[in-house]
Amino acid sequence: MIYFDSAATTHPSEGAVNAAKNAIEIYGNPSSVHSAGINAKKLLDNARKAVAKALSAKPEEVIFTSCGSESNNQAIFGLAKLRARRSKRIITSDSEHPSVSSPLSVLEDEGWEIARVPTLGGKLDMDFLQAELSKGAAFVTIMLANNETGAKYDISAVRKAIDKSGCGALLHCDAVQGFLKVSDKREIVKNCDVASISAHKIGGFKGVGALYVKSGVRLAPYIHGGGQEGGLRSGTENLVGISAFAGAVEEFDSNVTSHISELYNYTVNLLSGKDFVTLHIPESHIDSILLISVPGVRSEVMLNALNALGICVSAGSACSARKGVTHAMASFGLSKEMLESAVRISFGAGNTKEDCITLAEKLEETAKRLKR
Amino acid sequence: MIYFDSAATTHPSEGAVNAAKNAIEIYGNPSSVHSAGINAKKLLDNARKAVAKALSAKPEEVIFTSCGSESNNQAIFGLAKLRARRSKRIITSDSEHPSVSSPLSVLEDEGWEIARVPTLGGKLDMDFLQAELSKGAAFVTIMLANNETGAKYDISAVRKAIDKSGCGALLHCDAVQGFLKVSDKREIVKNCDVASISAHKIGGFKGVGALYVKSGVRLAPYIHGGGQEGGLRSGTENLVGISAFAGAVEEFDSNVTSHISELYNYTVNLLSGKDFVTLHIPESHIDSILLISVPGVRSEVMLNALNALGICVSAGSACSARKGVTHAMASFGLSKEMLESAVRISFGAGNTKEDCITLAEKLEETAKRLKR
Repeated sequence: MIYFDSAATTHPSEGAVNAAKNAIEIYGNPSSVHSAGINAKKLLDNARKAVAKALSAKPEEVIFTSCGSESNNQAIFGLAKLRARRSKRIITSDSEHPSVSSPLSVLEDEGWEIARVPTLGGKLDMDFLQAELSKGAAFVTIMLANNETGAKYDISAVRKAIDKSGCGALLHCDAVQGFLKVSDKREIVKNCDVASISAHKIGGFKGVGALYVKSGVRLAPYIHGGGQEGGLRSGTENLVGISAFAGAVEEFDSNVTSHISELYNYTVNLLSGKDFVTLHIPESHIDSILLISVPGVRSEVMLNALNALGICVSAGSACSARKGVTHAMASFGLSKEMLESAVRISFGAGNTKEDCITLAEKLEETAKRLKR
Repeated sequence: MIYFDSAATTHPSEGAVNAAKNAIEIYGNPSSVHSAGINAKKLLDNARKAVAKALSAKPEEVIFTSCGSESNNQAIFGLAKLRARRSKRIITSDSEHPSVSSPLSVLEDEGWEIARVPTLGGKLDMDFLQAELSKGAAFVTIMLANNETGAKYDISAVRKAIDKSGCGALLHCDAVQGFLKVSDKREIVKNCDVASISAHKIGGFKGVGALYVKSGVRLAPYIHGGGQEGGLRSGTENLVGISAFAGAVEEFDSNVTSHISELYNYTVNLLSGKDFVTLHIPESHIDSILLISVPGVRSEVMLNALNALGICVSAGSACSARKGVTHAMASFGLSKEMLESAVRISFGAGNTKEDCITLAEKLEETAKRLKR
């Protein structure tokens, strides 16, 4: 099987699997004060240090959660709860992941005003953002990189716009797709107050995520109980998954990033100038996601045809796969024809140039066969 | 190391570990529609069937979550959200786990009235409950078995009391400690509308839980986003942990339950009649938790002494270990002297009778040495 859907989830890396196997043996509860508990606590502390290092953050700024979606829910509901007295406005983009847009819709139903910055062509409309900021906001939540188009949003410019406005809004960033895949690894900590990341997009396991919460930033807990994670996230810690997360970040280093960039450029070259395909390349993008359209062949038809040939690609995000929603692509500005024939190719550590050649060939053959 | 703290967390069982190793290989996202996704979805479906079977529930009544704490938070906030118009009262017990009592405190701060049924001697005060039900309630949340005392609460009687009152309250049960450890395996589905369970108390991994939601019962989602788990719990599913959960329930069968009961009775016999120790045995209890006191030796001193001898026990729950809170034991009616010298012994599949003999001997030796 040739897997070009690493934006949906990645194959666990060797580092992640080895760390998990080790963690299975260390079975104590990190909250227990006996030896078994202390061993588990050490493992947890070391994993926190590894994830913090990858973020260039302090260990105490990393709160482990059960997934990127939980991180986003906690960030949004947690900031809303503590900041409602300042302002009941939130500024976001029009192409966020459902785990950001859905909590915002819940808040909207409860009377909050949500302003959505357009992202035509994969670029934040900065004039729109600046105008919205002038009306005040409790916080801004904008993703680092889009999960459908690969567009890289300029979080540093968002930070500057917030500072310029003087409105005092905090900045949350859904960095699930962008984490470890943007050129400046310090971009999150330099600009964000709170950020969400996830393990399974970088070779870790599904079911583990984290929140970066800058020192001094107040966030309400979302899961209440035993007071784990500094009181910010109760529940016995997922030691196997968290250890695998640490193993994954340590393995997902600059070699993987440059390998993915190489495959991206290689595939763009293979497809460029071919008249069966249109490439949708945002001016600024991460290299793990390449969105294309094959006009005349509906996405699901192409997906099934490639799948029958042993190639996994997707039409938008996995979350929307069973629902046919592709709102980020629409916000990007794709025409109906391009939308209906869109294919997302996403690269992972395990892909090779040979995979890319096979993909390009099969895409072309399938396009010609199905358009006949 | 002799580990008598399985109520805090268990050593992963062989069935869990094997299932996890298999799941690591099946890396697709269950929401993806290509082969990799379909393989992952099959694994998820099979795990759901296994957990449902252990509950005697239908697969669609099982919602996977990230832990017992999340399950409890979702149940309480989710029921409160949908039922606030009926009544803003909730009835609970005075000895619930923090992941139940803390969300209830949050609701109390928001104007809800919370009635707490006494549990003196490990028994629900049924007259108190019936009187509270007559005032109406949105729902009742009472645990199946207490995590500090092992007391088994009579959920069937709670159901009858609700039905008798005619108030229409739903029943949520925190069954994290009781799941698979009570004699009637159908007790949860027969009596509860919603129930919380957790994998790592029965040989699964930490970081995985589930909610039983009876067909027809409406519950609000707590983590919003991609709409996984029938829209009730968004976030890419923790496939490794969920598979291990299924492996654990399949292994934690009647053999394990009877093995634990044998060890419980054996240890009670070893300690009965010894004047250095007081056994706190509730009339109705699960056999995995035995609470004792060694008057004259403070809990933490005994814990450390036993730990130095390679034996792990606890003084109350792991969640309260670093905070010194023991509210369930106080509700049980332990005197200050008994509270301060309490030791929780909790049995798991891996314990042997030899372990119990060593524990009894070391408890006695340590008691005599430290009381001198």
